[in-house]
Amino acid sequence: MADPQTLKTWQEKVAWAQDYRDKSLSKVEPKLEGLPAELPLSSQDLPSLVLTPREIEITENYTAKELLVVLRERKISVEEVTRAFLRRAALAHAATNCLTELRWYQAIARAKYLDSLPEPKGALFGLPISTKEHHGLVGDDITAHACYVSWVGKKHGSIMIYDNFWEEGCVFYARTTQPQTIMHLETNSNIYGRTVNPYNRNLTPGGSSGGESAILGMRGSIFGVGGDIGGSIRCPAAHCGVYGFKPTTKRLPVGGQCSHMLGKEAITSTLGPMAVDRDSLELFMQVALAKKPWRLDPSLTPKVWTPYKFERPMKIAVQWWDGVVKPHPPMIRALREVVEACLKAGMEVVDWDCEALDHQKGWEILASLYWPDGGKEVLGRLEESGEPVLPLTKFIINEQKSVKDLTQAELWARCLERDAYREAYARAWTKTGEKDGREIDVILCPPSFGAATPHDQSRYWGYTAHWNLLDYPGAVFPVTTVDPVKDIKDKNYVPKNEEDKFVYDMYSPEKYANAPVSLQVIGRRNYDEKVLAALAEIEQALGRK
Amino acid sequence: MADPQTLKTWQEKVAWAQDYRDKSLSKVEPKLEGLPAELPLSSQDLPSLVLTPREIEITENYTAKELLVVLRERKISVEEVTRAFLRRAALAHAATNCLTELRWYQAIARAKYLDSLPEPKGALFGLPISTKEHHGLVGDDITAHACYVSWVGKKHGSIMIYDNFWEEGCVFYARTTQPQTIMHLETNSNIYGRTVNPYNRNLTPGGSSGGESAILGMRGSIFGVGGDIGGSIRCPAAHCGVYGFKPTTKRLPVGGQCSHMLGKEAITSTLGPMAVDRDSLELFMQVALAKKPWRLDPSLTPKVWTPYKFERPMKIAVQWWDGVVKPHPPMIRALREVVEACLKAGMEVVDWDCEALDHQKGWEILASLYWPDGGKEVLGRLEESGEPVLPLTKFIINEQKSVKDLTQAELWARCLERDAYREAYARAWTKTGEKDGREIDVILCPPSFGAATPHDQSRYWGYTAHWNLLDYPGAVFPVTTVDPVKDIKDKNYVPKNEEDKFVYDMYSPEKYANAPVSLQVIGRRNYDEKVLAALAEIEQALGRK
Repeated sequence: MADPQTLKTWQEKVAWAQDYRDKSLSKVEPKLEGLPAELPLSSQDLPSLVLTPREIEITENYTAKELLVVLRERKISVEEVTRAFLRRAALAHAATNCLTELRWYQAIARAKYLDSLPEPKGALFGLPISTKEHHGLVGDDITAHACYVSWVGKKHGSIMIYDNFWEEGCVFYARTTQPQTIMHLETNSNIYGRTVNPYNRNLTPGGSSGGESAILGMRGSIFGVGGDIGGSIRCPAAHCGVYGFKPTTKRLPVGGQCSHMLGKEAITSTLGPMAVDRDSLELFMQVALAKKPWRLDPSLTPKVWTPYKFERPMKIAVQWWDGVVKPHPPMIRALREVVEACLKAGMEVVDWDCEALDHQKGWEILASLYWPDGGKEVLGRLEESGEPVLPLTKFIINEQKSVKDLTQAELWARCLERDAYREAYARAWTKTGEKDGREIDVILCPPSFGAATPHDQSRYWGYTAHWNLLDYPGAVFPVTTVDPVKDIKDKNYVPKNEEDKFVYDMYSPEKYANAPVSLQVIGRRNYDEKVLAALAEIEQALGRK
Repeated sequence: MADPQTLKTWQEKVAWAQDYRDKSLSKVEPKLEGLPAELPLSSQDLPSLVLTPREIEITENYTAKELLVVLRERKISVEEVTRAFLRRAALAHAATNCLTELRWYQAIARAKYLDSLPEPKGALFGLPISTKEHHGLVGDDITAHACYVSWVGKKHGSIMIYDNFWEEGCVFYARTTQPQTIMHLETNSNIYGRTVNPYNRNLTPGGSSGGESAILGMRGSIFGVGGDIGGSIRCPAAHCGVYGFKPTTKRLPVGGQCSHMLGKEAITSTLGPMAVDRDSLELFMQVALAKKPWRLDPSLTPKVWTPYKFERPMKIAVQWWDGVVKPHPPMIRALREVVEACLKAGMEVVDWDCEALDHQKGWEILASLYWPDGGKEVLGRLEESGEPVLPLTKFIINEQKSVKDLTQAELWARCLERDAYREAYARAWTKTGEKDGREIDVILCPPSFGAATPHDQSRYWGYTAHWNLLDYPGAVFPVTTVDPVKDIKDKNYVPKNEEDKFVYDMYSPEKYANAPVSLQVIGRRNYDEKVLAALAEIEQALGRK
């Protein structure tokens, strides 16, 4: 292969990256067979056509924790597990276009090494982990480009969490797609094209960690890593019916990613787990924090994972809408169903009346702080290669009125607005305990205005990004799927504003066949453990484990 | 009095502020009598000439904790305590020029109210607390101007900690001076002139909380509040032989101060206690955090004060110098004396070799991040009134080569440099435990290159500001005083650079008669409790309580 740095046009660089990916996929052995010539709307039935019963058993019968038990007991070899997930990942890619690289040889070599150890060791012994492309990876043969064509072929190291997981015995085997600028709530780029939803290819898997959600939605992975600054873990997890957790920033180290605007701190991203089950979220946090990452990255909060236990029935506030954009009918039904279950389980449920808190104002502040240079660096990086600027990139930079290149004084003014907004929200939360001393424990809310949207329609971020503005931890979990019978359109609704109209007009139940509908649990800043404890309570109320 | 906002010249505004202060001081009853016509070099003997034996007893015989006991038991009335401290504060002012306002009537009214309560209540019941001017105060008659002439007469509210302390029953009675821009390590302004050291009026009390250190050095207060972004608690405490503690930022709320560059976050300040004894530092933190301030200010770390206990003898690293500026002989002697005591007490002591860590580079980063707009806002605020820019203001803004008005990209680059620097330091700290698993607990180091400097000579910040760059908590404590016999100048020393020469040339023992010499204990970021526990161990090794 040519040295990508010497290539001249953006198309040549893209071809190089695709070739790199395709070569990595071509190693799959045995080859994938049995795929229909035309892929169906939902990819959910494909595994049974392509994979062996044993592969299906390995990839479907275990959560990460359960798989770790059989791996540790050496009831299955790491190699067999790895090969099963490699093949299923390749299938997930064939179905949804979710990979930037399949690490066939490296993963099998790693598996053989782990199998050769006299004793299994490490908290993640033998666990296959899928990872988002721009995080980099352990091993020096790796390129990372954060989806910028101008960076294609760049050598890049690994982030601290991956080093730690590696020490704990995991297997890295698949790297996943993300959108241009890593700032769409979908997953589309000039390099790899569009990733689609494994439940309905006319819908997005969400973004920016949409390669992860697609592979998880196909069980081509059961344990993955995403990143979130506006919903990039929670939105894709929600759209693909899997679990995702965005902790408070500064719990997990983020340094070392291949990314833009490094050093910006007004609003920052965090890594976080995405997985097919709830327990994996906590497992991820436990292992990552057991390493005391603050000893090497002192920007972090020095606190190991400290599981929270409720001493009495929870008090939940429900955000039925955010005062800006009305959720689609399936989302409102999901809220209603979960609220009913929680009430039945003896919890207290109140309304979270956030209209007075003006989420629209919050969005203006946030959009400005996403791009305090007016988008100069990022747009410049696109211009460098000449690759086209995609519509959702234009949406999140050029079409946001509050985005401009700020002077330092203007930046400070925006940060002050942000802090005032955060304080107002904290005071509103505190106030819920004023009368009876029982403050709400968590907010239950939609992670999006609806199920996964049709492509290029993800133009409202409020339901996830608001919690990035506040830096509140949030977990999403699957609740139901769109039901054309139950989820009929409210013909009488009159939209409140332009965005509300855009979202209202988008909905008709038949577009959303099979689409998962998920909800989100939000806690106060730094109450990460409480959020996952609350999620467990809610799922138990739903009759789940 | 005229409405200060209508005054035209900066001199008129200054006259207004001085008049306001003088009127507040004129209320002292009985008047101060017995002051010599010419004030002596040291003010330490003045109390015995001016105050009654009972006033001396009340102001000298108790630490804050001890005073709280007798107040709670109502062995002394709050009013009697308050009057004694009011008179002694007025004396401290006459000796050192440390006050911007004496709150005679307000404090006595408050004391009478507290005495009238059927039961004493609150963790600070009846405790007189002195406060730094720009923090604002409880009560709507207050002006705050952060030492900007253009802000003289501005109405200003109170900060959260003061509201909390007020709820806990304290008495606010004296507001103290600070320098122009609140960014000198001395205390001099166009509004109030120069505050001097209570041990030697030719020396500075330090700054920026130098009104606090002067009043504490006179025991005109035993419990005060400072702020620190480059040494502003620790430097003045060290120079006046009292205790000071700068916690990690985001432990204590700072919002609501009257200040400049609000919203800037690359380097931030913190409040902290200044006191005549060690226990008061912990008392301050305990009371402030018991209020769970993060419930209203979500930027804070949600952690109550959690006292630390050493399970085995400490391991201390000693920073004999910072690789840039060699400390004066009394400082080196103080280090030696404390190290000997610690060794005798069974502690392990190693050298903190920080030359490889390049503190000079750290200072360049820090200076740039103090003024990311090149000083525009602050210099503009001075220009607004026409007040002269003082030499130490020019020093810290105009004379720092790295200070310039940054673009957003330049700001990010600086923040990245800062983070890389912080990580390098954290790794060096972690490395101390590599061989034997025994990482150092704290660093023992000078809080300045020497004792209090002659006026306008505080032109090297490295010994305190470095820990602001790293956001490490630090406590200072008095060790000895300058001794012309023991602390002779090293005539053979050859300075390493311009700053080193400036500091070397400054020293001759006779300039520093009576001057206290203090040391500093530094802990890892967020290990605040450990720093105060280490200070207690060290003081016990010194044979103190």
